[in-house]
Amino acid sequence: MDNKFRVAVIGASGYTGGELLRLLTLHPQVTLTRVVASEKSKDLPVASLLPHLTKVYDCSLSSLNTALIAKEADVVFLALPHTQSLEPVAAFLAQGKHVIDLSADYRLQDPKIYEQWYQTAHTFPDLLKSAVYGLPEFNRGAIAKTRLVAVAGCYPTVAILQLAPLIAQDLIEQNSIIIDAKSGISGAGRTPALGTHFPESHEAIHAYKIGKHRHVPEIEQELARLAPAPSSKTTSSSPSIIFTPHLIPINRGILSTAYAKLKPGIEQTHLDAAYSSRYQNEYFIRLFPNSELVNPKNLRGSNFCDLSCTYDPRTGYLITTGSLDNLVKGAAGQAIQCMNLMLGFPETLGLTAPGLFP
Amino acid sequence: MDNKFRVAVIGASGYTGGELLRLLTLHPQVTLTRVVASEKSKDLPVASLLPHLTKVYDCSLSSLNTALIAKEADVVFLALPHTQSLEPVAAFLAQGKHVIDLSADYRLQDPKIYEQWYQTAHTFPDLLKSAVYGLPEFNRGAIAKTRLVAVAGCYPTVAILQLAPLIAQDLIEQNSIIIDAKSGISGAGRTPALGTHFPESHEAIHAYKIGKHRHVPEIEQELARLAPAPSSKTTSSSPSIIFTPHLIPINRGILSTAYAKLKPGIEQTHLDAAYSSRYQNEYFIRLFPNSELVNPKNLRGSNFCDLSCTYDPRTGYLITTGSLDNLVKGAAGQAIQCMNLMLGFPETLGLTAPGLFP
Amino acid sequence: MDNKFRVAVIGASGYTGGELLRLLTLHPQVTLTRVVASEKSKDLPVASLLPHLTKVYDCSLSSLNTALIAKEADVVFLALPHTQSLEPVAAFLAQGKHVIDLSADYRLQDPKIYEQWYQTAHTFPDLLKSAVYGLPEFNRGAIAKTRLVAVAGCYPTVAILQLAPLIAQDLIEQNSIIIDAKSGISGAGRTPALGTHFPESHEAIHAYKIGKHRHVPEIEQELARLAPAPSSKTTSSSPSIIFTPHLIPINRGILSTAYAKLKPGIEQTHLDAAYSSRYQNEYFIRLFPNSELVNPKNLRGSNFCDLSCTYDPRTGYLITTGSLDNLVKGAAGQAIQCMNLMLGFPETLGLTAPGLFP
Amino acid sequence: MDNKFRVAVIGASGYTGGELLRLLTLHPQVTLTRVVASEKSKDLPVASLLPHLTKVYDCSLSSLNTALIAKEADVVFLALPHTQSLEPVAAFLAQGKHVIDLSADYRLQDPKIYEQWYQTAHTFPDLLKSAVYGLPEFNRGAIAKTRLVAVAGCYPTVAILQLAPLIAQDLIEQNSIIIDAKSGISGAGRTPALGTHFPESHEAIHAYKIGKHRHVPEIEQELARLAPAPSSKTTSSSPSIIFTPHLIPINRGILSTAYAKLKPGIEQTHLDAAYSSRYQNEYFIRLFPNSELVNPKNLRGSNFCDLSCTYDPRTGYLITTGSLDNLVKGAAGQAIQCMNLMLGFPETLGLTAPGLFP
Repeated sequence: MDNKFRVAVIGASGYTGGELLRLLTLHPQVTLTRVVASEKSKDLPVASLLPHLTKVYDCSLSSLNTALIAKEADVVFLALPHTQSLEPVAAFLAQGKHVIDLSADYRLQDPKIYEQWYQTAHTFPDLLKSAVYGLPEFNRGAIAKTRLVAVAGCYPTVAILQLAPLIAQDLIEQNSIIIDAKSGISGAGRTPALGTHFPESHEAIHAYKIGKHRHVPEIEQELARLAPAPSSKTTSSSPSIIFTPHLIPINRGILSTAYAKLKPGIEQTHLDAAYSSRYQNEYFIRLFPNSELVNPKNLRGSNFCDLSCTYDPRTGYLITTGSLDNLVKGAAGQAIQCMNLMLGFPETLGLTAPGLFP
Repeated sequence: MDNKFRVAVIGASGYTGGELLRLLTLHPQVTLTRVVASEKSKDLPVASLLPHLTKVYDCSLSSLNTALIAKEADVVFLALPHTQSLEPVAAFLAQGKHVIDLSADYRLQDPKIYEQWYQTAHTFPDLLKSAVYGLPEFNRGAIAKTRLVAVAGCYPTVAILQLAPLIAQDLIEQNSIIIDAKSGISGAGRTPALGTHFPESHEAIHAYKIGKHRHVPEIEQELARLAPAPSSKTTSSSPSIIFTPHLIPINRGILSTAYAKLKPGIEQTHLDAAYSSRYQNEYFIRLFPNSELVNPKNLRGSNFCDLSCTYDPRTGYLITTGSLDNLVKGAAGQAIQCMNLMLGFPETLGLTAPGLFP
Repeated sequence: MDNKFRVAVIGASGYTGGELLRLLTLHPQVTLTRVVASEKSKDLPVASLLPHLTKVYDCSLSSLNTALIAKEADVVFLALPHTQSLEPVAAFLAQGKHVIDLSADYRLQDPKIYEQWYQTAHTFPDLLKSAVYGLPEFNRGAIAKTRLVAVAGCYPTVAILQLAPLIAQDLIEQNSIIIDAKSGISGAGRTPALGTHFPESHEAIHAYKIGKHRHVPEIEQELARLAPAPSSKTTSSSPSIIFTPHLIPINRGILSTAYAKLKPGIEQTHLDAAYSSRYQNEYFIRLFPNSELVNPKNLRGSNFCDLSCTYDPRTGYLITTGSLDNLVKGAAGQAIQCMNLMLGFPETLGLTAPGLFP
Repeated sequence: MDNKFRVAVIGASGYTGGELLRLLTLHPQVTLTRVVASEKSKDLPVASLLPHLTKVYDCSLSSLNTALIAKEADVVFLALPHTQSLEPVAAFLAQGKHVIDLSADYRLQDPKIYEQWYQTAHTFPDLLKSAVYGLPEFNRGAIAKTRLVAVAGCYPTVAILQLAPLIAQDLIEQNSIIIDAKSGISGAGRTPALGTHFPESHEAIHAYKIGKHRHVPEIEQELARLAPAPSSKTTSSSPSIIFTPHLIPINRGILSTAYAKLKPGIEQTHLDAAYSSRYQNEYFIRLFPNSELVNPKNLRGSNFCDLSCTYDPRTGYLITTGSLDNLVKGAAGQAIQCMNLMLGFPETLGLTAPGLFP
């Protein structure tokens, strides 16, 4: 116990915060010292917001007191709404903490792009240089060395993981990428609204924010890093993606179906080789030859991301499906994976529980 | 009563057959004279298979006796599995009946394509010439004149309706069409199987039959008819589509999200004009400016098909969403719409009930 | 058209109001002249609140102007939250209208009981005398003669229908009645709240308001009317019930399972005879010998109430299950059934559509 | 690794078997050495039946070879359909193994009652004497000493846990117990059938096997053991229960609502004291003052059983709600809890993970 790292979670009233708490109980090397929710929940038991944690965490909720938390924690997870992390991240960094931010506030390297998509100025642009995009499969080394991780978004995680081998190996026409993603409703957060009221969202499905979802610039930023250096012939190396998210009536899980035109001569064997060579040593990536098995059903509560790719000889397109639990590999699980890297633990520590099925 | 048309429904044990019975109760100009299910259900009450029809249809089930049915019915609906309609359709036509087939057996004009996708020879290829594809918004005149309608499939109906204005007006690059469709589980039929067992399909979503679904040739056949005549410069006038169906945990309804690259200069106003001019007089087509409103939720049990289209200026693509109830506009409702045309009734007769919400 | 009755619906933003509109489209003898929602929705199209009614009702929403509505309507339906109907009901009655109130405001005959359970004084106690409890199977004659119907609540409708034959024929020990009811979430209304937020209520079930639900006095009031006159030996003729409602993850529908100790000598045949004799001429009541068929699944969108009763020889108890659609037979359908009686139409007019299955 | 106990799981193709595998991955002191499914699955990977275990168990399935399994395992879990465990349990006992049977085959102490409810003779009645009913909260000591545990059924576990304090302390009239239970559909097993086909069971609820469910004798047997010794005045000490199970559209979880008439003078404080004193040291039992919090939602995937009790002063009845995950505390989790006792481990070892929420 004495040698465990002390951890604080800020933003415990939402689904991501609750999931951080659940997963931290499974981690053998950390102790939870502070759980922060809104001012009005102060001193209430954790279980008043998250009844499933009754008997698991019998501590009380705190309000956001940076100095106090800094004294009691080595690692701080922030699961706050976008724009609300800007200031506390800076404060905890100034106190020398390991900071793991699950909002989008430190994900976009260019503050102008942040401002454009989030309609607010970035108040700590200098910190963006030290912020590492929290997708361990691609930024493992940098995560291990930084004090600030901006955990990848849920849609971007699966989109990047399913497209990266194709882009890195230059197998597809970059400006042909279409991502049709379907997310469970926990992805919309815990604040009640008409659109997520049970009778409105049950037996329903719809697209939303077509062409305008804030994960677009995040996906484009990361795919651009993976693209091979442009030759003199190519006019642009940054892929411009089409991204359409949908809300589907499940609690957890994303299925992302992505399409891209293959370069001439590329067939199924090249695709299989690309995925397999890239991911064969990645514990959390599971490759399935049959796309019907890529289903959030098979990974709920786990940190896996399942992938498949199918070559369509009639059209010369690649169709790849990818799935993850938006609250685990798409948020809290990935955050703990990053923490393991930052603290020098084995990357999978505390994260190996399989999904709940059925 | 005396002047009503007499109707038989063959294949009452499935969801499509049940839906035909439900909708026929709402139709003022027909009388149901025979309801046919399998041999083993013979003489059982209709409600033994379809308890929701208790007190609505208190008649008994018959087995498939072509001569008897021909004697008692003017119009025959067949809701049988694919390949099982081939022979009875021919038999009822020979008896001079109006035949409305909901299987795929008479949809594909080219018997070789049928054989390729259904792995069985078409035993009545000559009848294909008189078969009219049952999509009234496009084949109204021909349906009114034929004795054999092959009702359009569920996915093809929405795909064709959402893409037709773009193709007919030559607004898109035809070989860029991608259709990402999501269907409720009634679309998989009523026969129990592991994949549709509740605990397996609830809280689940997956793609299936990527590049191999039998609705591909049907969509391509109909879109090709709509395409403008090829100029000398174009190599091909038939669009080759990419079609990925998914199963989602709702009972009824399809949402189809389709993507296509716009020809140079085409923007939102051109798209809106194309849809609006094509569909302004179509009662069953509803156009929504906001894609979030295109949702099977809003049309369950009704014969509507809801559409939206969104121009993405960042990429020059069009994203269109379309929705219908797979058992109504995607099957039984459309069949009755065709019947109305064949019998000279107003096309919307008996079909104007709004959807059940929530 | 000219001879149709003119109808207004007040409270169109909720599920009950929406369902009234849907069902009124199926009614051949009425015309909708006013649809009232909140002040802020004034002049918006009906479809802005209820997109499924696009093209079905293309009229605009009004605000609550009693004088104007009285001028334009013969019949007024009020689908307002409890306590908000008190005053407008009085106003419309004063104008000589047929008033059909779907709230609980005029259901309880004793204003003191109303005050006790609704924590507010009844401001029009004199009107309670003319208010008829809107359960046509029991109050047919009175409904036909009154100007004010207080439509029965959803839980009370099924509870009374399933228990009435037992009580009226004195087959059970009255103080042993236990009602364990399960309702779909549309029964909780359309206002978003944490408990009905999709991720909280999906894959969930819980009891609520044990011993305190406001439908208790309503059920007891109506069952007391049905009880045989107390003999000198009996200490009380009014049944005191135990009622436990549960919320289950379906959109529509109630299943009510009720238990009662049988009087000595009563067996299955007596039970069957009691239900059958009472309900054989009631179109909307369907009796099933197999309790597994009593399922809201079989009547969604319809005005049926399905019942079964099972004698348990091991314990001498009766277990009865009853089911209805809380928005139809439990609200809007029953309201129209009452209207038919008030206006002299056949009772089932416009209400015979079967349920949507699956 | 060397000192770990070796475990075999027989019946891996069903949900209970799959859940045993999932939970065994979380247990630090056992090694899985054999996973047995049907003959036709022999040599296939575990993930062919249970894709969520891909990368978690990369071993192959075996067929049922008793001798081989006995050689490779110290503990054998059997998750077979009822009646199929009779013989293999005897065989593994003869080999000196610790046997944990999840079927009902060794739960009923009286072979005549087994024969009556399971319509088959018990072929090893002598073994029933050594079989201990696997409900650790009541049989802790006996479980620790036996070689054969018959793990309690899912409904009986929650029913006994919610009623035991009342019966043991003589607070209720024993012949008034009514249990209205609602189960998720995984409780019906993994074999597809029409009643559990998604479109039939989604948006549905129904009672089944009223008065005839096989868990009745099991509940009665165990409650009888808890009842205080009959005084000379009482005619019977064995409670006869009314038990009505329902199927609800969730994957996992049971909510059981039980009713009983309180003895004179018993009120809320006595109830609270009874539950609290009985369960204050039971880790897996959580008591909630608010019955709305007793919800399978809060314990999915965990070994908790949540309880509440409400006194209804109007009627003198107690209403208690209880909830558990039918596959964990109702099956696999409880089996491992029993194993921990048999092997001398802390009872909660490997079972402390909280539920998955939402």
